[in-house]
Amino acid sequence: MAPSVDNNNIVVSSLKLERTLSMKGGNGESSYANNSQAQAIHARSMLHLLEETLDRIKLRSPESPFVVADLGCSSGSNTIYIIDVIVKHMVKRYEIFGGYNQLPEFSAFFSDLPSNDFNTLFQLLPPLINYGGSMEECLVATSHRPYFAAGVPGSFYRRLFPARSVDVFYSAFSLHWLSQVPESVSEKRSMAYNKGKVFIHGAEEMTTKAYKKQFQSDLASFLRARSDEMKKGGTMFLVCLGRTSVDPTDQGGAGLLFGTHFQDAWDDLVQEGLISSEKRDDFNIPIYAPSLQDFKEVVEEDGSFTIDNLQVFKGGSPLVVNCPDDPIEVGRALANSCRAVSGVLVDAHIGDQRSEDLFKRVERRATNHAKELLEQLQFFHIVASLSFP
Amino acid sequence: MAPSVDNNNIVVSSLKLERTLSMKGGNGESSYANNSQAQAIHARSMLHLLEETLDRIKLRSPESPFVVADLGCSSGSNTIYIIDVIVKHMVKRYEIFGGYNQLPEFSAFFSDLPSNDFNTLFQLLPPLINYGGSMEECLVATSHRPYFAAGVPGSFYRRLFPARSVDVFYSAFSLHWLSQVPESVSEKRSMAYNKGKVFIHGAEEMTTKAYKKQFQSDLASFLRARSDEMKKGGTMFLVCLGRTSVDPTDQGGAGLLFGTHFQDAWDDLVQEGLISSEKRDDFNIPIYAPSLQDFKEVVEEDGSFTIDNLQVFKGGSPLVVNCPDDPIEVGRALANSCRAVSGVLVDAHIGDQRSEDLFKRVERRATNHAKELLEQLQFFHIVASLSFP
Repeated sequence: MAPSVDNNNIVVSSLKLERTLSMKGGNGESSYANNSQAQAIHARSMLHLLEETLDRIKLRSPESPFVVADLGCSSGSNTIYIIDVIVKHMVKRYEIFGGYNQLPEFSAFFSDLPSNDFNTLFQLLPPLINYGGSMEECLVATSHRPYFAAGVPGSFYRRLFPARSVDVFYSAFSLHWLSQVPESVSEKRSMAYNKGKVFIHGAEEMTTKAYKKQFQSDLASFLRARSDEMKKGGTMFLVCLGRTSVDPTDQGGAGLLFGTHFQDAWDDLVQEGLISSEKRDDFNIPIYAPSLQDFKEVVEEDGSFTIDNLQVFKGGSPLVVNCPDDPIEVGRALANSCRAVSGVLVDAHIGDQRSEDLFKRVERRATNHAKELLEQLQFFHIVASLSFP
Repeated sequence: MAPSVDNNNIVVSSLKLERTLSMKGGNGESSYANNSQAQAIHARSMLHLLEETLDRIKLRSPESPFVVADLGCSSGSNTIYIIDVIVKHMVKRYEIFGGYNQLPEFSAFFSDLPSNDFNTLFQLLPPLINYGGSMEECLVATSHRPYFAAGVPGSFYRRLFPARSVDVFYSAFSLHWLSQVPESVSEKRSMAYNKGKVFIHGAEEMTTKAYKKQFQSDLASFLRARSDEMKKGGTMFLVCLGRTSVDPTDQGGAGLLFGTHFQDAWDDLVQEGLISSEKRDDFNIPIYAPSLQDFKEVVEEDGSFTIDNLQVFKGGSPLVVNCPDDPIEVGRALANSCRAVSGVLVDAHIGDQRSEDLFKRVERRATNHAKELLEQLQFFHIVASLSFP
């Protein structure tokens, strides 16, 4: 994410983010595995939409395996839960359809950037069922997984799978991550330079335009790659952060998360002389919460997919707290949420010690605004159900 | 690996080893990534045999991807090198065959137990070629990989892939790892109890018989799973530690590695009062170096594969040292070699501190016998080329 103008550097910059970005791995207090309950709740609230998407998949002969891929799976148990839902739903469809007298084998791909903590994910996977027994029998054994599993390291903005090999793509809470901070945004001499800020919430128009362009070009790359990889008759279920406002400088929930206390904490570090203002200005969260229109334009322009459903969905709060009246718990929850998703990037930019300093300040500030945070922090999501005719 | 007799415990014991065993991850001094130069050299010395195996694969229409899997890939760069060799060789075959006017896409699966360090492996993978360009053009770009990659966590003694989905299996230096220490070997009241020893080199007949039975039953499970997963016309290239002696109590190179200084170092810990003799006797290295006959019997009994080539191959020394005259370097190399492959199991059995103590003693003892080690430590491998008609 260093400022860069020539073409060569742009590529390096994007590759660098790919090699760095991940949700916080392991099982620690601020790990993604321990700070993704909200994502779990939001994903569960959309299960009916996912199931509608699965009902549109064309059933093929069970001779070839049924293949599902989660793109941006991260390292917690949410992805395992979702794959389980998808496989079980498809088993039911095969059984009800009844046209075949056997089930296909199921194959699941868990994909994320190479810096994702796949080790933690693989250790959470239940053991595979014994394929000597019957599939039906095995599905009852809930402690085992009824599908082959593989991890796929790579960016979903490029190809990940062989052509015509996947029946259903699922991607939740990932497509708002840009492939890179647009180079103009971190280039000092550029009109889009995001001076004083670490996110586009409340930023200048030129800056948000550069972000919007990056989002749309990334989404277009995503759709192009998937249209190569998908089997005819397959479907995609996509969920990403979205906003209800037409104005992209109002980033909604993401804006509150990264544009207020998080921003103020960076300013604290500058004012306390712990980092320079340039160091802060060089950092930008590579997230863009699109409007429905931003998203729709790209899908229509690509033209490979039929839009079966496209809506803004109220996800609820990203904060899961046991005692909403305890400001300390709320503050810690916000800081951990922030850190689980952005901590790895912050560490890489200012080092572990300053990162620790930063999130302490996020926590203190959030504690002081606990009531208001609980009331106002709401996530909206774009939910898209697309089929590949 | 706790002593157990009832069926339930046997399963747990085998599952426990699966969840524990791995080559030492990361990039440290005793990591597998930094102690697998010998494996690299041995694998390269057999490339002509691998290529002969690849030449027997039936070429299919390039419409469907060409799929290769490395079983027991571990976390160093050896597996990436081998997959590269395989893909390039197959590209050449497709080009020479000329019957098709395009190349297939290539897909590589890196498989190992869930405790393997897949994170380190994924970070070593070169970026994927841009699938927008032509495949030929991309193959020239040696800094990129011309294949889709995925990691598959699981035991190769069970199913890992959907039926009829893999063209070629490669497995090197892994099949001598048993799925578990035979339960009778760690059961105090059993005739096969391996008293006083941590490996079967020089052990009692009943003990080695139990190991041989375990090896043959494991290899049979391996072949059964692969015969489900393999495409018709596919081939397998298998390499594992082997022995030239008919007598299984003479474990050859593996015997020298785990039956002499390593054994003596365990005895040191007992004599110094650092661990009890029971603690030592409860530990057994789950490795068996088969004879050609041990191996052949299983393949013939299974009957699914044609044996195109089966031989004992002289691999050379497992020690790679810059200054063979420096006993300290030789001692360290032996201790690191031992630790890279068995350290994770030793840590789990006696804790990190005692494990440290153990390998210090291995190093000291090996330093005192450096000359003799360099002269005598030779690995032999069973090399099998099997095709699936």
